[in-house]
Amino acid sequence: MQQILHTIGAGDDLTEVISAFLGRVSSIFDAQLESDLAPVAVLVKHVEAYRGKMLRPTLVGLCGLAVNPSVELTREHAVIGAVCEMVHMATLVHDDVLDEAETRRKGLTVNRLRGNEPAVILGDLLIAASYHLCSQLQDQRAALAVGHASMVMCQGELLQLHHRDDFSLDEKTYFAIVERKTAALISTACELGASRGGASNEIAGRLAGYGRKLGIAFQIQDDVLDLTGEEEVVGKTLGKDLEKGKLTLPLIHHLTNVTGKDRGRSLLLLEEACEGHERSSDAAATLRRAVVETGSLDYARSVALRLVSEAKSEIASIEQSAAKSGLLAAADAVVNRSL
Amino acid sequence: MQQILHTIGAGDDLTEVISAFLGRVSSIFDAQLESDLAPVAVLVKHVEAYRGKMLRPTLVGLCGLAVNPSVELTREHAVIGAVCEMVHMATLVHDDVLDEAETRRKGLTVNRLRGNEPAVILGDLLIAASYHLCSQLQDQRAALAVGHASMVMCQGELLQLHHRDDFSLDEKTYFAIVERKTAALISTACELGASRGGASNEIAGRLAGYGRKLGIAFQIQDDVLDLTGEEEVVGKTLGKDLEKGKLTLPLIHHLTNVTGKDRGRSLLLLEEACEGHERSSDAAATLRRAVVETGSLDYARSVALRLVSEAKSEIASIEQSAAKSGLLAAADAVVNRSL
Repeated sequence: MQQILHTIGAGDDLTEVISAFLGRVSSIFDAQLESDLAPVAVLVKHVEAYRGKMLRPTLVGLCGLAVNPSVELTREHAVIGAVCEMVHMATLVHDDVLDEAETRRKGLTVNRLRGNEPAVILGDLLIAASYHLCSQLQDQRAALAVGHASMVMCQGELLQLHHRDDFSLDEKTYFAIVERKTAALISTACELGASRGGASNEIAGRLAGYGRKLGIAFQIQDDVLDLTGEEEVVGKTLGKDLEKGKLTLPLIHHLTNVTGKDRGRSLLLLEEACEGHERSSDAAATLRRAVVETGSLDYARSVALRLVSEAKSEIASIEQSAAKSGLLAAADAVVNRSL
Repeated sequence: MQQILHTIGAGDDLTEVISAFLGRVSSIFDAQLESDLAPVAVLVKHVEAYRGKMLRPTLVGLCGLAVNPSVELTREHAVIGAVCEMVHMATLVHDDVLDEAETRRKGLTVNRLRGNEPAVILGDLLIAASYHLCSQLQDQRAALAVGHASMVMCQGELLQLHHRDDFSLDEKTYFAIVERKTAALISTACELGASRGGASNEIAGRLAGYGRKLGIAFQIQDDVLDLTGEEEVVGKTLGKDLEKGKLTLPLIHHLTNVTGKDRGRSLLLLEEACEGHERSSDAAATLRRAVVETGSLDYARSVALRLVSEAKSEIASIEQSAAKSGLLAAADAVVNRSL
């Protein structure tokens, strides 16, 4: 995200402020996970390599500044940023176990390097550490909000698992999953950044709405990249959605709009694309082409664009500032990214 | 545990008070996990079947009463009881995934019934729900203590995983694992029960010490049962420690004390007893007999008994009451249980 601020030409001052803020977030993050037990320290070290764009802490910082540009970001903001990033890291570690993913951020995953068992417990450690960190704040509203968002995320993930290999999954259920799985924590990061910066409930609610829309758009872009991205660019194992029988927005649109024999063919390809099938990569490639041909990839992109535009509208009433420009640019960057 | 209070003939009044308290704990537990998403509700339902002795909530209640027999247990106590039980349930669900266990509390495990993936996320949901519940308390000291205990538990588990198949594991490392993995949460349950009941730091510390010793003794008894118990009585898959290359106290003692050719034979049996080996159950049975023959089972039992006696000494200075008798009896029950 910081590189996104660079790329989009956000002001140097803002880039510098957020860069310093992310430095504080990283220090808090690392200190919280320090351990004098060597096997624990070694595992925790892997998590550092997972840290990438730091989208959630960046949003905590930008939202804090956007609601009160004259005030500096507090330690509370940095702690909340670290907490959100830690919860997010925990879900990445566990997701990689569930998805049997081999690479993440251009490196090997914890499960690939160390096995599933340490990866599951490392995820648990990250969750526990995030809550422990959050409970150190004077005000427990952040802990309550993060706890709630984490519950909602798990519920979204369970809903998704329930619908695995469900080729009749509709858009409504898709959005019910994504709102919970991806958008809830991003929304909470924005809301807490704003409210802990002194925003009124109304403004904090607007920023929560911004985060929610941005989060859904982010997931749709992930769906698009899983179908079209290049592994070397994205830096993680791709095509896993198909393999794991997870229906993404482009696929849902495709299956809803393709008819007759073509539909039968796509359903067959979908089944073949699932894991364990010997022709799975051929089937996936053919299916990808079919999805493009029915305009379903364009459709998904247009939905993401609409959500980005809605996210920007949510914060229309907030006074102009460098941080607000950063939030607007971050929304655009979500759908323009190739990684 | 409630049945333990029955079995050991704790006063009817105390049994009734704790029984009512556990009822409140269960209501809070269930309400916190309610979901309007059917697939989530179905999974959460499995957790009910996991609930057994409710050792941790019972200790929260007993410690609360022991430090202040004239005062009634508060809602805060019940919430803390539910939080500790929920964290414990999360570890059971994840442990069963790691151990590939098939049965728990005489029923099939979540991973066996629903697969590893929902089981991992269900565990995550339980952790998130426990912290969310804890953050609802006015005072965040409980959240801080539970968060810390949870981190320590994960560190213990990681240490144990690191030493899997390490046949030279010594007692010191064994105790470092058990203190973290099992004793930390039990100790925290006792400490919070006492401190939230108005105990001084000194008395709360004593009860934390009681919980710590009791927790270690509890784990040693688990080790003993894993070697000697009957699956139908214990109600969970046994022999998993051996299969999974986890060295238990009786085995560590055996390997330390057996010499020459016999030691070589035991090491070979240990390797054969590990998972995937076709003669693993024969090897395990032979090894069990060898452990008994070197007096290592008796040794482990004696260590557990010593810890129980130390746990009881920790609370010697606490005024006599029905709750204190309950705590003393609970300590005895830990090593007398066959399940």
